[in-house]
Amino acid sequence: MYKITSNSEGVCAPLGFYADGISAGLKVDGEKDMAFVYSDMPCVLASVLTTNKMAAAPIHHAKDVKQTNFVMINSKNANAMTGKPGMADLEEILEALKQEKSGLINPLMSSTGVIGVRLPKEQIISGAKKFDLSVKNPHAAAQAIMTTDRFSKEIAVDVELEDGKTFTIGAMAKGAGMINPAMATMLCYITTDAQINYITMQEILERVNAKTFNAASVDGDTSTNDTVFLMSNKRAVCHDDDAFEEALFMVMDFLAKELVRDGEGATKLVTYNVTGAYSNTEAEKVAKTLANSLLIKTALYGEDPNWGRIAMSVGASGAVCAEDKLTIAYEDVVLFENGVNLFDDAVEERASEIMKRDEFTINVELGVGGGSFRAYGCDLGNEYIKINADYRT
Amino acid sequence: MYKITSNSEGVCAPLGFYADGISAGLKVDGEKDMAFVYSDMPCVLASVLTTNKMAAAPIHHAKDVKQTNFVMINSKNANAMTGKPGMADLEEILEALKQEKSGLINPLMSSTGVIGVRLPKEQIISGAKKFDLSVKNPHAAAQAIMTTDRFSKEIAVDVELEDGKTFTIGAMAKGAGMINPAMATMLCYITTDAQINYITMQEILERVNAKTFNAASVDGDTSTNDTVFLMSNKRAVCHDDDAFEEALFMVMDFLAKELVRDGEGATKLVTYNVTGAYSNTEAEKVAKTLANSLLIKTALYGEDPNWGRIAMSVGASGAVCAEDKLTIAYEDVVLFENGVNLFDDAVEERASEIMKRDEFTINVELGVGGGSFRAYGCDLGNEYIKINADYRT
Repeated sequence: MYKITSNSEGVCAPLGFYADGISAGLKVDGEKDMAFVYSDMPCVLASVLTTNKMAAAPIHHAKDVKQTNFVMINSKNANAMTGKPGMADLEEILEALKQEKSGLINPLMSSTGVIGVRLPKEQIISGAKKFDLSVKNPHAAAQAIMTTDRFSKEIAVDVELEDGKTFTIGAMAKGAGMINPAMATMLCYITTDAQINYITMQEILERVNAKTFNAASVDGDTSTNDTVFLMSNKRAVCHDDDAFEEALFMVMDFLAKELVRDGEGATKLVTYNVTGAYSNTEAEKVAKTLANSLLIKTALYGEDPNWGRIAMSVGASGAVCAEDKLTIAYEDVVLFENGVNLFDDAVEERASEIMKRDEFTINVELGVGGGSFRAYGCDLGNEYIKINADYRT
Repeated sequence: MYKITSNSEGVCAPLGFYADGISAGLKVDGEKDMAFVYSDMPCVLASVLTTNKMAAAPIHHAKDVKQTNFVMINSKNANAMTGKPGMADLEEILEALKQEKSGLINPLMSSTGVIGVRLPKEQIISGAKKFDLSVKNPHAAAQAIMTTDRFSKEIAVDVELEDGKTFTIGAMAKGAGMINPAMATMLCYITTDAQINYITMQEILERVNAKTFNAASVDGDTSTNDTVFLMSNKRAVCHDDDAFEEALFMVMDFLAKELVRDGEGATKLVTYNVTGAYSNTEAEKVAKTLANSLLIKTALYGEDPNWGRIAMSVGASGAVCAEDKLTIAYEDVVLFENGVNLFDDAVEERASEIMKRDEFTINVELGVGGGSFRAYGCDLGNEYIKINADYRT
């Protein structure tokens, strides 16, 4: 048995990790816009990168890296659709940094922001030179990577094994638009000191990612820059695969929910809990269709218990289903059961009460098999349009 | 050769067709809410029906019908997710009507509106009894089938063949939300007097539908009630397959654009013209992904020539593509060409001017093959949310 407890030190919680966020003048008003995560020992690196075919320079650069001890992140500019010059910019920045700071092994760079504009290279190099690799300011790092995020997102957990030995996982992430089941405009940096081998770590990361970040949707778009890095410097003297996977799930599930909660213009976090599907894959298809439906998102925003839109979306998903086997419930309030509409004034009142909450679950039982999946979605309100109608300015 | 000219009589333009719209008290304030289309001769019927697995009672009822001379339509209630009772309601209504009006052959019924509520059967029967099958009020019929539509949609064309003989096609349709590439919450009724055989007519309808209604997207949702009926009473003494297909394309293409133009909250009609794809299917995938992207829709609403979102969406579509082969142009203004960003102040100004138009084309050349497809989309503004946040009330 093992015990998981929380730790407030974010990406600096595991042994030997350092981080900071600084201002390089990319954002206005001196806001933090560059961050780094550094380990004083070499790390094995597991990663999940965007599936977008127009992947940005940082994605191409990172995709074969399996060992590193340093990643820097800039906001305001994604270095995407910048071709070979964009890749050269990235390499030049990292080269300049290696000249300046000794001991960097395969340094990585992530970028987030506007697409199609060359990086302000000199400004970023000047900024990076200010990095002090001996400081532990995880909260400043988490702030610096924000774009349209309303709040920074970080978490850390300590895992105590039966023999009393401990290892730690820390993480920070940014959203907030384009969050989508096929990865999102999201960046996530996870640090650990667990004694885990690379192949196991990569497998666990992919498995947990499928149930967390890939189950989270804000607007159904998939970005050019999505990145999850998981770095382990193995400085803790212990490890346990099951405990690691459970702890990593806690970390990533928390961050996935935070990303959706902070989706552009979102006011509600809704869990779509789909059960009784023909297979898990079919359940996933339904859950993601529900999480991405504009008609459902707007009904959530209007706090309108319009279960007809849930039924419509289930039918539109293409999954095996039938009206007379379908059951829809908002939390424990059943609105439609095995083809029978239970919606009346009393049910409407109870369902409406649930919809006023910041967070609730919509249960969809298909009644055709044993497959299940759970996706996270949010509502869509006027604020989303305001943010996205003129993002560049 | 043949000549196609317009006709203002909508569904009543072909010989022997009658139509009207009346108020049965389903909508408030005495607005028209029920319509019929009737032919004084039996018709062969081609149809395209929703692929939604929660298809409504009218869809199940119509799916095997190949001959009819009458269809009635009610708005405000979709008779969807109403199970066997919903089907019994439909049958009872049509049976009552057959008692009342002689000569109805396989009468059909379409419904549109709220999901999950039983039809107000007595009210609809009373309303249907008021139908006068000898009147030709196509415009009243087109108005009666509207739900959240801002304007009614109808068209008719006369086709004059080389020998001077003519046949005619008329049509009406309603949108306006849930319009999506996999059919939409749309109802469309097309009438013709062409001497066309059933199998040819069904084939032509499906082919044209794929390029028109199935290329039109408002919000990516697929409804339970989507219906296109094409009725031919063969009263004209002539026919020509090619002329028929071209005329039907004109009719359906016009209506598809009208549906998108009138999408809930839409202010712009955008054609996504995708060329140079590996195949037509790949081009279709890209065009529909673009038309459905929330980030592109909001950029359109903000009149922001943010071509990065186009590139992002192309990459996210899953189609074969590469940054250095991609070209993006708004009408004739090229923003990105074979991997090179041409965006500067002058280009931005010209692109911004184009975006102010009510209607324009975004050209995307993938440069990897000869496949092409053209989809219609709209912007997404605050009005969409206002309409959909509380549709039921």
